[in-house]
Amino acid sequence: MRDVVVLGVGLHKFGRFPEKGLGDFAREAGLAALKDAGVDYKEIEAGFCGRVYDRVNAGLRTFGELGLTGIPITNVELACASSSRAAMLAADAIAGGIYDLCLVIGAEKMARGMLGGGEMEPSYQMLMGLFIMPGAYAQMAQRHMHEYGTKPEHFAQVSVKSHKNAVHNPNAHYQAPLSLEEVMNSRMVADPITLYQCCPTSDGASAVVLASAEKARQYTSEPVYLRAWYGGTPMYENGEVDILEGPTGMLARKCYDKAGVGPEDIDVAQVHDAFSPGEIFTIEDLGFCPKGEGGPFVWEGNTEITGKVPVNTDGGLLSRGHPLGATGGAMIAELTWQLRGQAGARQVEGAKTALLENAGLGGLNVMIFQR
Amino acid sequence: MRDVVVLGVGLHKFGRFPEKGLGDFAREAGLAALKDAGVDYKEIEAGFCGRVYDRVNAGLRTFGELGLTGIPITNVELACASSSRAAMLAADAIAGGIYDLCLVIGAEKMARGMLGGGEMEPSYQMLMGLFIMPGAYAQMAQRHMHEYGTKPEHFAQVSVKSHKNAVHNPNAHYQAPLSLEEVMNSRMVADPITLYQCCPTSDGASAVVLASAEKARQYTSEPVYLRAWYGGTPMYENGEVDILEGPTGMLARKCYDKAGVGPEDIDVAQVHDAFSPGEIFTIEDLGFCPKGEGGPFVWEGNTEITGKVPVNTDGGLLSRGHPLGATGGAMIAELTWQLRGQAGARQVEGAKTALLENAGLGGLNVMIFQR
Repeated sequence: MRDVVVLGVGLHKFGRFPEKGLGDFAREAGLAALKDAGVDYKEIEAGFCGRVYDRVNAGLRTFGELGLTGIPITNVELACASSSRAAMLAADAIAGGIYDLCLVIGAEKMARGMLGGGEMEPSYQMLMGLFIMPGAYAQMAQRHMHEYGTKPEHFAQVSVKSHKNAVHNPNAHYQAPLSLEEVMNSRMVADPITLYQCCPTSDGASAVVLASAEKARQYTSEPVYLRAWYGGTPMYENGEVDILEGPTGMLARKCYDKAGVGPEDIDVAQVHDAFSPGEIFTIEDLGFCPKGEGGPFVWEGNTEITGKVPVNTDGGLLSRGHPLGATGGAMIAELTWQLRGQAGARQVEGAKTALLENAGLGGLNVMIFQR
Repeated sequence: MRDVVVLGVGLHKFGRFPEKGLGDFAREAGLAALKDAGVDYKEIEAGFCGRVYDRVNAGLRTFGELGLTGIPITNVELACASSSRAAMLAADAIAGGIYDLCLVIGAEKMARGMLGGGEMEPSYQMLMGLFIMPGAYAQMAQRHMHEYGTKPEHFAQVSVKSHKNAVHNPNAHYQAPLSLEEVMNSRMVADPITLYQCCPTSDGASAVVLASAEKARQYTSEPVYLRAWYGGTPMYENGEVDILEGPTGMLARKCYDKAGVGPEDIDVAQVHDAFSPGEIFTIEDLGFCPKGEGGPFVWEGNTEITGKVPVNTDGGLLSRGHPLGATGGAMIAELTWQLRGQAGARQVEGAKTALLENAGLGGLNVMIFQR
């Protein structure tokens, strides 16, 4: 199979833009990624559109903002992990020799409030609060506290670090620091998760140009390589029931093997912190620290930009924001900027290998990038 | 790139099943396809779920009916062409060496009435009736009548032939013949399209097991080969505005070139007859008859099961039914049965090469199969 690279990335700032539509977000992000890649839209051979709330025809409407060239455009939905999965499908096709140049656009104009009942078939899990997202994270957080002695302030510190990073990210929904006290004392949503440990409901878009390494040579001498990508489902039969044992570790190990690296080689990571406990669970699953030690690991600053393994340098979902369909692409954009040394005040010195973990209801994705 | 084959197909009967849910449809179709392939679900490496109306998490819920094995499951939406596009993505990945065995499930539980305003962003096209499907087809039909002298009974004959074929299809939503008079005299929906020239609103599911040719040898000595597949968008800038000149012809030519065949080699075809004029427009685009001669071509019986190029042998969308997300997979199933000689009373004698055209708002797909 052929090498796949990230040739260009672009965003429409995340936030609330009631005056704009999906097409506006997609156009700005798409044009930014094409400009970054140095690629004309006419050269793009296939489009993949990640979106959740918007329905039929979103792909044609978003890509239509860039031109009507007749290319296949596929709508991909995987809840919060839609645009990273869209990028993986593009990468599959490029690796296999089907296409040389693909554009992935993730765009979302969010409804008010949380993803909830109206979006899904009713189930007993939903009635129990398991599929109401803060409730699901809170149950795992409570178990983590019980098993490992993790403290509420460990979770809160994830949000403090996130907001600190996002001050330096002009595309972030929130760009103001928060103190530990402010986070801890904000309204309780689902114990131990307070309001400021929940990601905001954001609009926005991300775009990524993916290319075969061979084709990319026409445009750049220093592309960012996509070394490994694996997707899975958040639930699987693993012989025993353990709500703290998801498939993230298994997918990460497959990625490490494929890329020929280990957790100790990861210089910067983007992980799914829709709620603050997410970062702690995930850094353990990825092997950045031993199981159960994620709380103190974060508390001691190891995931800060200057720490051992910087995580969510752009503010993550908690501060950058989380327009569902756009989030995966925004993660790819941040890691690309980090690997190119273009992340400004959030730059991780000398970052060479980066990891992405994007989780959605229905599926999750792990990817490894290298310069 | 590697050869891709259809190893198994299965359906849940199309119709109205108010007592059943999406998971019920998917389970029955999925198990049928796995049984047909001789493959255990645990061997499937990736899942692709085509669906339109159902939202977040449909893929995990439908595939979850077969087991929780942790494989990546991707939701693909392309309106009426969702599951054929899902199959194309699986084929891309198999051809490229990413997977050896994939399962595609298309499932839909339709709302009452047509796909309409609530599903899409409002646009001037919708306000003009261009995106209300019978209106769109009627405008093209009127133009076709004006340009080529096509008659209302030519369109109606498509439906007569469709219902005649579906009598022999136990999975069809409608299994009763209709006379030309009954079709012509049914309520007018959008001139010249009468009610019985509109596909029904159906529930149901389709499933397709795709494999690399190499892997398939473990299961069968006579697989059905997927020789070519191309997708595109229904609108593109082709230098002039002509509502009768879509991209179907361009995609078909690409498929013919790739497969090394021509329109004269097609023994049986499935085309998108959501409304009866669809068959006439499409057989012209595919080169089965010269442009403008589709009406008389159908009228003279050339698309009958015993005709020159049998089209929609299972009743097509008009009689088999059209659960949006399931339709593309049902087309693949019928062509697979035809190529294997398993189509019973609808069998086209000695069919060796088959073509699929599945059109959706936002994209369309052409595929060529061979035994």
